[in-house]
Amino acid sequence: MGATEDRADTARVEAFSDGVFAIAITLLVLELKPPTDSQGLWHGLAHEWPSFVAYLSSFLIIGIMWVNHHSMFRTIVRADRLLLFYNLLLLLWMSVLPFPTSLVSRHLGHTGGDASVAEAVYSINLTLAAIAFSLVWMHAVRGGRLIAAPMPPREERAAIIRFSAGTFVYAATIALAFASAIAALVVQFAVAAYYVFEQVGAGSSGGSST
Amino acid sequence: MGATEDRADTARVEAFSDGVFAIAITLLVLELKPPTDSQGLWHGLAHEWPSFVAYLSSFLIIGIMWVNHHSMFRTIVRADRLLLFYNLLLLLWMSVLPFPTSLVSRHLGHTGGDASVAEAVYSINLTLAAIAFSLVWMHAVRGGRLIAAPMPPREERAAIIRFSAGTFVYAATIALAFASAIAALVVQFAVAAYYVFEQVGAGSSGGSST
Amino acid sequence: MGATEDRADTARVEAFSDGVFAIAITLLVLELKPPTDSQGLWHGLAHEWPSFVAYLSSFLIIGIMWVNHHSMFRTIVRADRLLLFYNLLLLLWMSVLPFPTSLVSRHLGHTGGDASVAEAVYSINLTLAAIAFSLVWMHAVRGGRLIAAPMPPREERAAIIRFSAGTFVYAATIALAFASAIAALVVQFAVAAYYVFEQVGAGSSGGSST
Amino acid sequence: MGATEDRADTARVEAFSDGVFAIAITLLVLELKPPTDSQGLWHGLAHEWPSFVAYLSSFLIIGIMWVNHHSMFRTIVRADRLLLFYNLLLLLWMSVLPFPTSLVSRHLGHTGGDASVAEAVYSINLTLAAIAFSLVWMHAVRGGRLIAAPMPPREERAAIIRFSAGTFVYAATIALAFASAIAALVVQFAVAAYYVFEQVGAGSSGGSST
Repeated sequence: MGATEDRADTARVEAFSDGVFAIAITLLVLELKPPTDSQGLWHGLAHEWPSFVAYLSSFLIIGIMWVNHHSMFRTIVRADRLLLFYNLLLLLWMSVLPFPTSLVSRHLGHTGGDASVAEAVYSINLTLAAIAFSLVWMHAVRGGRLIAAPMPPREERAAIIRFSAGTFVYAATIALAFASAIAALVVQFAVAAYYVFEQVGAGSSGGSST
Repeated sequence: MGATEDRADTARVEAFSDGVFAIAITLLVLELKPPTDSQGLWHGLAHEWPSFVAYLSSFLIIGIMWVNHHSMFRTIVRADRLLLFYNLLLLLWMSVLPFPTSLVSRHLGHTGGDASVAEAVYSINLTLAAIAFSLVWMHAVRGGRLIAAPMPPREERAAIIRFSAGTFVYAATIALAFASAIAALVVQFAVAAYYVFEQVGAGSSGGSST
Repeated sequence: MGATEDRADTARVEAFSDGVFAIAITLLVLELKPPTDSQGLWHGLAHEWPSFVAYLSSFLIIGIMWVNHHSMFRTIVRADRLLLFYNLLLLLWMSVLPFPTSLVSRHLGHTGGDASVAEAVYSINLTLAAIAFSLVWMHAVRGGRLIAAPMPPREERAAIIRFSAGTFVYAATIALAFASAIAALVVQFAVAAYYVFEQVGAGSSGGSST
Repeated sequence: MGATEDRADTARVEAFSDGVFAIAITLLVLELKPPTDSQGLWHGLAHEWPSFVAYLSSFLIIGIMWVNHHSMFRTIVRADRLLLFYNLLLLLWMSVLPFPTSLVSRHLGHTGGDASVAEAVYSINLTLAAIAFSLVWMHAVRGGRLIAAPMPPREERAAIIRFSAGTFVYAATIALAFASAIAALVVQFAVAAYYVFEQVGAGSSGGSST
């Protein structure tokens, strides 16, 4: 746990993570299947709307996670084994996301319990990803373990809360999925979109303050 | 919006973008399916010509987009959040391109409306990619925001027009697809080929003048 | 064999290897298929447990292999052709792992010989990967060939044994698979988990001592 | 054509190429399908031998091409647009290789013309890749255009021949495929294996002499 490694190492963690993010985000397209509708291609494509919504949502979420990962690793200047492991956990939940995305694609267009189950599985995946994200961040920031200089306690706590807020929203969408699968997806989409703009507007006061 | 980041950051944006371009261009091959024709393999392969045309066209277009992206980021020296977001939008349209490519593969060989619809969807994808490309470039260049030094206004305008010209041609192929799907594909192919040679011949006077 | 190359080269070997590890680990998700169970989605997902176990196991193993590869290349400072070749062999066994993973996914849930065969094939793959790993390491360490300074003979022998221990365990699971496929998978999982914690706890005394 | 770019650029060309090589080599596994043989899994796997041969052959060939690409770019120190284009052509033939690999997988196990056609298509792909490889190399080396210093004419000619020899062998296998598909595959395999050892043994006198 004490073994810290130098700058060159966070470079390779970032490179590997970039690879996994880039592949996961690009593999999503394999879930989009050409329609086999006999009423013409427009009609078939229109019926596939849940696939497009799920694709766009997952693309946006992985993209935002990448942007945040990138911000986070501007602050993290050293890597230890536990960081590698927590980061691997985060990559696990990013890599597997195309699977619940395909469940949502397939079931969101139908009424009934399966749409809720699919969306709940998707929400669980996002929640676990957000938890892994927080683990990486807390491990690095606590007591200035893997960052350039320890933050004042209040700032440290704020930094941790800032990066963990998404976890609670995603966890709430697990329950919401059973009330309305579409409402849960809309909330997830809104969270992702919020992060885009929050980051754009407040980038200078965020993790990238150095 | 004001938060600019240093050189190291455009390096990671470039690395992530390279990853997505490289994966999208390589995943195209998964749309090529072994023929199941009972009249022999040559015959089966010959009947698959629309797949090969669509593959080659998408490969060339993603490849050229990568070359241009690479030129563009030789001029862009800083990254802000909005740049990351516009770039993510560009990567979205690159990543999803294998899907309309598969629609074209499947329908171009048949006469009738579906070939036009498939080609129109393909054209819409290319147009949206070209728009995202222009957004990245305009955001970076305007007033010298993310480049080493502001360009003189006339040069700035010329640089923006240069990178946006493709947008209008791609937009025109949306309409053309309904007259003739093959004509639209030929025009797209020609635009890609033109960029290869334009770049080769005029590379020194382009964005890479620094 | 004598031709050594400078630091820049191990950088490109690492980059290529990172790419292959990242892609292999992310492609695993394509083996997870949406269930087509008529008794509802929960039921269908529950019946897919062997797929999830196999996915998690392979993800963890490739992830750990990557962490170890990363450690190993912090010690290796030069590359020669034979290193590139042994490393390519390692990447072969990493790249092909999704195939035996899919065999395990498909057969582990059923009793009978095929579950054992699938698990044995999986174990053979892991054993071959571990052997390739040892070849890379032994070739680099022997007489200080590709590392910064030769180790004392005793330390050299210890370093080789340390990295080769996994090979014998994986080889033993080939036989174990025929007694119990699930027991073999549990052992493999335990080895991977052990490496996570062994690395975390003893990272400072490991290959990364420089 | 005159526009040369600095070192940083060959870095990004190499990174993009590494990505495509890494993805193409890893996607090959998707052509390996779990057998659906009713006589047990061993039996089913044994019947899939053409898939394993084709997989191994393509993996080795892409791997060797990567090693050579890596050697080549140690000598090439500048990039111009035409180099990017020739390199893109090489990446095209690497990316598409999984398709003829799947044709060989499917037809090599059966006697008759289709095995020859499949193998001939595979040979054509390899020949085109070798030609693209030579184009990159000749363009860079001729008159010292993109290398550190011009070679003496005799050495330049030797360097070009060295990198082009494979082309003629691959071209010969197109014809050989019609006599015997398996013989053609054996020759291709032998060429790849030869390059492994030729490189290992003579690495110091090759392109990496600097």
